[in-house]
Order: sequence, then structure tokens, then C-alpha cells
Amino acid sequence: MSAEVTEPSTVRWRLDLGYDGTNFSGWATQPGRRTVQGELESWIRRILRLDEPVQLVCAGRTDAGVHARGQVAHVDLGSMLIIDCAALSRRLNKVLGGDCVVRRITAAPPGFDARFAAIWRRYVYRLSDGGVPPDPLYRSQIAQLNAEVDLDRLNEEAATLVGLRDFGTFCRRRDGASTIRNLLELAARRVPSGPMAGVIECTVRADAFCHAMVRSLIGALVAVATGQRDHEWLAAITERGVRDSSITVMPATGLTLEEVGYPADHELAARVLEARALREVSRS
Amino acid sequence: MSAEVTEPSTVRWRLDLGYDGTNFSGWATQPGRRTVQGELESWIRRILRLDEPVQLVCAGRTDAGVHARGQVAHVDLGSMLIIDCAALSRRLNKVLGGDCVVRRITAAPPGFDARFAAIWRRYVYRLSDGGVPPDPLYRSQIAQLNAEVDLDRLNEEAATLVGLRDFGTFCRRRDGASTIRNLLELAARRVPSGPMAGVIECTVRADAFCHAMVRSLIGALVAVATGQRDHEWLAAITERGVRDSSITVMPATGLTLEEVGYPADHELAARVLEARALREVSRS
Repeated sequence: MSAEVTEPSTVRWRLDLGYDGTNFSGWATQPGRRTVQGELESWIRRILRLDEPVQLVCAGRTDAGVHARGQVAHVDLGSMLIIDCAALSRRLNKVLGGDCVVRRITAAPPGFDARFAAIWRRYVYRLSDGGVPPDPLYRSQIAQLNAEVDLDRLNEEAATLVGLRDFGTFCRRRDGASTIRNLLELAARRVPSGPMAGVIECTVRADAFCHAMVRSLIGALVAVATGQRDHEWLAAITERGVRDSSITVMPATGLTLEEVGYPADHELAARVLEARALREVSRS
Repeated sequence: MSAEVTEPSTVRWRLDLGYDGTNFSGWATQPGRRTVQGELESWIRRILRLDEPVQLVCAGRTDAGVHARGQVAHVDLGSMLIIDCAALSRRLNKVLGGDCVVRRITAAPPGFDARFAAIWRRYVYRLSDGGVPPDPLYRSQIAQLNAEVDLDRLNEEAATLVGLRDFGTFCRRRDGASTIRNLLELAARRVPSGPMAGVIECTVRADAFCHAMVRSLIGALVAVATGQRDHEWLAAITERGVRDSSITVMPATGLTLEEVGYPADHELAARVLEARALREVSRS
């Protein structure tokens, strides 16, 4: 009674990926643009000399400029194809130019789906406040803010947003799909030492995200933590549940998809059914 | 009886700097090239509206592509100029474009000289071996190697090079100046966790360096630690003390000047006299 997601004539492969989003127009293929999905799909097809295009499905469809250290994707390939995973990774890494890296390719366990089997996504937003310019060697992954952030205020407000609720306020588009999400973790700290010392790292973990949700959440929290807005404003717009134009969506530079969580192999199929039912059309 | 290095009519300012060397043709000014020194000198002159060019002196004259997190420089400006250090830093950071950052400008203590007062320079060379591509977000500061490095072998050989000796073997040019240096520290480790997990970090600390010395030392050590060469080769060429063409100079990408050490303020002047006597003409 397992939910069969893959075609019987195909085998599903899992790809673990990292990329510097700076020179990509995001994950999703767009004609004439360099995207992570577009690059990977076209190179996989060329390297394996396939007649037909291949299609990658990922756990988190990152926007233009957003980075990933723990992106997960899957691709279904003909079951007659024998893939040397290590060789394919090496070949891809040679042609991808360094700003996208395939860490690992593995045969996916039965029922695996990079998008629908995921139980959480963890993003980190990095921010240098008070006009302090970030270490040049890390500047592509840290956003800069002139105002100073009151970290305690930020964390106080963040705590009020954790939990299962309608995050419509923080979603850029609503396409009829649900904007109810379970926000599992939202907390910031200053990096205590090392080359990123002083940088604010805000961890945002949820079962899934709607479009621009992380950057809108951080934008709203920063507005309160820098004294531009107050708790009442945040509580009121959150309660309303509709996209609010008074929220600043933070720049993509600071955002990195760090990790995606999946259940144990025997729970994959059940998770896919559940997630599909919840968010068939929405972004994850 | 203090050694007066600055002109009486000037005040010496200390600049603490960081840069991503990728898009710089090194530290030293070269006509028609974008260099760290060139950019800083021309912007300082423009911002302060000075008639005359200014001249920066740094602790470690990094080559093209080499990075710095803890570069130190000084500049002498007319004593009639009242400098708002914080404002000048901010202005510089606005125009420098993010890949060079002025962390701090301070009035230098008496006797300070960014180059000659330094008692040590600490570089770190970062290397991803075994064909493992580095995290794309860190790729500009990590060199890549296909062969696998035996870290114990590398550290064994490294230990034999520590101490005061003639490093002529590892210096790209000899211009008659001494190549005797005191190598205080040379040891590698693999980063245990985090986004750089597995990357080899090789710390090289010496009183001073001659040209391309760090990258030559690492190149020689890597040759032994990957089995291309043996201990006898390294011992023989080191002993010979003349530049050896069999040494591979490692790529600039992996190299970062992390920190420069200075003595206590009251020892600065004595240190300058000592260092000048030792290495008047050589690179530091």
C-alpha cells in the first residue's frame, strides 16, 4: 500500500546541492536566464546524452540571489540507465564553474520526493547592522543594515510568531493556495567569534515556506528591532493575514537555505501524501 | 632617544583593513591596475581633498589574488588635518565597493610603522583536497586540489621547517636582500565542522616573509603530503637555500593574511630600528 510516486520505468536520484546565488536568477528555470535548475538540467542531459529533457524537483525554490548550502533535489531517469554517481558529480562540478556544487548523488529511497517528503526547511538570514561593513570574503552572504538591531527585541517578537498559523501577511503572492505554515524555529544570535563575529544570524525553520516568507519575516522583525515599528504593528498585520505592503522584504544576499529535513525512509511515502494534500499548488 | 619615523609636521594614522583579493592586482600600486594600495590612496586623497598624493605603507604586500582579513597600513598626513576617523572609514567603505573594507582608522602610537614595527605576520592557506569542491560561498578563499593530502605527513614535514633559517629556497626573487626569516609556526588541521568542514587550514606565522614564501612553502609541503616528493627532496632543497624551480607555488586564491602582531607601544621604536637594519630592502 505504498504511495508510488516514481514511474515504474524510472529510477529516482537524489542530489544534494550548494550554490552561491549571486550570479543565478534563482532556482527555477526561466528562458534566457542562468538558473540553478536550468544549468543542472541541461548539463545532466548533455553529460548523460539523453534524448529527452530531464526535470529536477527541489525542496526549496530559492529566489534570485538566494544561496543554498543544503538544497535537495530529485530527478527521475530511465531505469535502464546505469549512473556512476561519483563520476556524474565530478563531471557536473567541472562544468558548473564553482558557484554551484553537487555534493552527492544517490539513489533515492522508495517514496522519496525532494519537495513533498521534506518535513522542514531551515534557512539562515545573515545581517551586519550598525553600518558595519561585513568581512569582504563573506560579503556575498551577508546583508548590510545602517540601523542598529536590538537583538533582544528581535527575539521577543520572533517568539510570538512561532507556531502553526496563517502567514499570508508574509507571502508575496497568493495563488489560491494555503498560506498556513508551521513555523518551528525563529531566533537570532550574534556570531560570537571568528571572521563573522558580530554578524546577526537569524535561523528560520518551518515545515514549508510560501514565496518571500523568510525575507518578509526578517524585514518585519528588523523594523521592530530597529525602532521603526512596534509590537502592536507587527501583531496587527500578522493577525490580518493578508500581504502587507508596509513590510520591507529583505535583500536576497543575506539568505541561505541551510538544510532540509526528511523523515525516516519508511515514513517517506506517508509524508508525501500528507504534504501533497496540504499544498498541491503552493510553493514550498 | 626615541626613533622618530614620522616627519614632525605630519601625524601617522593606522588603518586596519580586510579585502577579498579576487578582483585586485595585489596590494602594491601598479599603473592601470586596480590595486588595494592604489584604490585606498586615491580615495583618501579625494575624500580629504588633498593637493598632494598620499602614500600607504602596509605590513604584508599581498600578491594579486591574495586576501586579507587583518592587513595593517599606515599613512602620514599633515598635522593640521583634523581627521574624523569614523567618518573617513564610513566614506571609504561606501566608495570601495565591498571587496575592501576599512575596519578602523586610529592615530598611530609614537614610533609605529605598519611594516617595520610588526613582529609577526600570520597567514592561513585554505585547501580542499581529494577533488572535493569547496562550498560555493567560500570558493574565493579556498584552493582546490585533486590529490589527497596526508595531513600527518604534511605536519611532520612542516615541523622540520620551523625556526630561524635561510628561506631562499622558497623565495621567488632575490634582490640581494636577506632571505633569513624566523618561521614561528607552520601547522595544518582539517576544519572539524561548519560550512568549511574538511577543508585544510594551514597556518604560517613568521617574523616576516619574502616574496611568494607562503605559497612556496605550502606547495613544497603538499608535494610531500600527496606522495609526489619525499622528505629527502624537501630537506635537500631547503638546505641548498636557493630558489628551486621544482617547487609549485600554490594559487593565490587559498591565501589570506589573517593577522599582524605588533609589540607593546613602548617597544615600537626599538623594533622599527631592529627590523629596518635587518631587511631594509627586502619585502616584508
